[in-house]
Amino acid sequence: MPIDHPSPLSGASYSAVELLPDDSALLLLEQRRLPDHEEYVRLDAVGDVARAIEDMVVRGAPAIGIAAAYAMVLAARRADSFLRDMQRAASTLEAARPTAVNLAWATRRMLSLAERIADRAPIERVAELADEARCIHRQDVAANRRMGELGGARVPDGATVLTHCNAGALATGGYGTALGVIRAARDAGKRVRVVADETRPYLQGARLTAWELARDGIEVTVIADSAAASLLAQGRIDLAVVGADRVARSGDVANKIGTYGVACLCRAHERPLYVAAPWSTVDLECRSGEEIVIERRSAVELTHFDGRRLVPAGAHVENPGFDVTPARLVSALFTERGEVAPVGEAGLVALA
Amino acid sequence: MPIDHPSPLSGASYSAVELLPDDSALLLLEQRRLPDHEEYVRLDAVGDVARAIEDMVVRGAPAIGIAAAYAMVLAARRADSFLRDMQRAASTLEAARPTAVNLAWATRRMLSLAERIADRAPIERVAELADEARCIHRQDVAANRRMGELGGARVPDGATVLTHCNAGALATGGYGTALGVIRAARDAGKRVRVVADETRPYLQGARLTAWELARDGIEVTVIADSAAASLLAQGRIDLAVVGADRVARSGDVANKIGTYGVACLCRAHERPLYVAAPWSTVDLECRSGEEIVIERRSAVELTHFDGRRLVPAGAHVENPGFDVTPARLVSALFTERGEVAPVGEAGLVALA
Repeated sequence: MPIDHPSPLSGASYSAVELLPDDSALLLLEQRRLPDHEEYVRLDAVGDVARAIEDMVVRGAPAIGIAAAYAMVLAARRADSFLRDMQRAASTLEAARPTAVNLAWATRRMLSLAERIADRAPIERVAELADEARCIHRQDVAANRRMGELGGARVPDGATVLTHCNAGALATGGYGTALGVIRAARDAGKRVRVVADETRPYLQGARLTAWELARDGIEVTVIADSAAASLLAQGRIDLAVVGADRVARSGDVANKIGTYGVACLCRAHERPLYVAAPWSTVDLECRSGEEIVIERRSAVELTHFDGRRLVPAGAHVENPGFDVTPARLVSALFTERGEVAPVGEAGLVALA
Repeated sequence: MPIDHPSPLSGASYSAVELLPDDSALLLLEQRRLPDHEEYVRLDAVGDVARAIEDMVVRGAPAIGIAAAYAMVLAARRADSFLRDMQRAASTLEAARPTAVNLAWATRRMLSLAERIADRAPIERVAELADEARCIHRQDVAANRRMGELGGARVPDGATVLTHCNAGALATGGYGTALGVIRAARDAGKRVRVVADETRPYLQGARLTAWELARDGIEVTVIADSAAASLLAQGRIDLAVVGADRVARSGDVANKIGTYGVACLCRAHERPLYVAAPWSTVDLECRSGEEIVIERRSAVELTHFDGRRLVPAGAHVENPGFDVTPARLVSALFTERGEVAPVGEAGLVALA
């Protein structure tokens, strides 16, 4: 059900996710319809939010964390048996996508509050949880701005920056992680151009990164994922910056499939690769990249486009949603708690 | 105008390009409609063939060379002023796509014959030229089989082979260059599995390589181009083999955009990258990769799919059709004249 624009908490003119002022429903920007249609869907049940996360109406580790936090408010509104229903809601949401840690981080933070306020009146519980979810959202925007400051300082004036997938305002509460670094460099008066991998199969780069950067007046050029190597060889990329879905204690980074290849290519061409991710993406209980569950997404994302078959029926398809970039290929990690470089356990634990 | 199947000169059940037995028209398998529709178009004018090459109805360096040779027969049938019209036809065809050298190699071979037989009767000229074009076609199939033998010997039993784009029967007169290596390994009794990069933006891997391998009963798994790196990291790729559009005297190889990235990734993961290409792809007059003209294809291949917009109007697009892999990243080059390893000027000149 398309509806009007929300009033974004980030202050921007659009938002991946918002809770209505009366806490009655969640608005999600229908990202599958971008760049052609800017349209919001309104959801008031946890199951619908979980499905929207799974189907990538909303995507991006921080944004799905915020959506899940708001969904816990919706669960509280409908709860019969408060704590049991809140736990069920958390399980439903966490099962939607396994790789990004922000989802479980957000549901657990909401669940922890729910336990503390379980003896309050229902209307108070909803109000408290809504405050907490909006706090998670505001903190995410603030974290992005802080990461932007740290990362933006590493972007030289006149730089051309490669990015993969969308780690922008559309993937977060607003401003963006990787694209926050680029926005901060621009806001600091630097000239900056972006090369965006189109990012198959979901085309987050072509559809989303290009959309939000063009809207902000930041020059962006979309390329096929496989063209990044030749641009690097031609010396036309100065650095790369990406987001993350989970950062292990070792500093290994899970991010959109293809990030590892970008990292290898940056290393081969002596260009830095930076990762920008809020602290909620850091999972110190996960020792290394080997422990990160990589979501295997549906073959249909590769076999069909808009109903047209692209891969013959007799062929197999493998469609991992993410890959793992080892810490040694990451030049620096920006979080709102500070910069980690070299990237590794010592640097991460020092910020914990 | 869809028509019935031709009788392929290669002996296979389909063919990228055939001349009708009465030399009156060229049949092209409409590759833009694969894998869903197996349908041939019939062309009897040079301009139509040039357009079909430009629009990639037929593609693959050897196949467009053969199509151009047959188009020169069509030109001879319609010629008023024989040599002048033949030269015009050659120019029209050569302008269709700049990177693959086989196109110009084929038109020049046909033009050279035309000059030798210019004083014969028109009907004899057409017959001679048709014989020559079919000879080019047969030689291409034979070259593929010889390259297959050489390359197939390098494929271990049980290997998983990565390939990029389509360098198969559909890209040649039949059997294939890179896929010829895979077919030869299988024909020698080896178990071999293929991982095919989908190959954006034209999806030759998803649509064409998967189609022809599945049809031959060779196990094939399609992946997003950006997933190759993580499969290499997991030790799930034993070697890569690709075709070529032009091989410079230095051994530098121009091939489909993304090949250079595959080459970098193979090197980083200590896996060999092989190139299979007929001698007609070798351009000894081109000193190095820097001299190779890289075709810049239309932005529409990235901005739209089946009429649906994927990239917002405010974004730029860069869509190079090819990249250059330096000789040092190629473990061996297979041609019908022999194997070149290490790949470089000395080895190439020794076969000239």
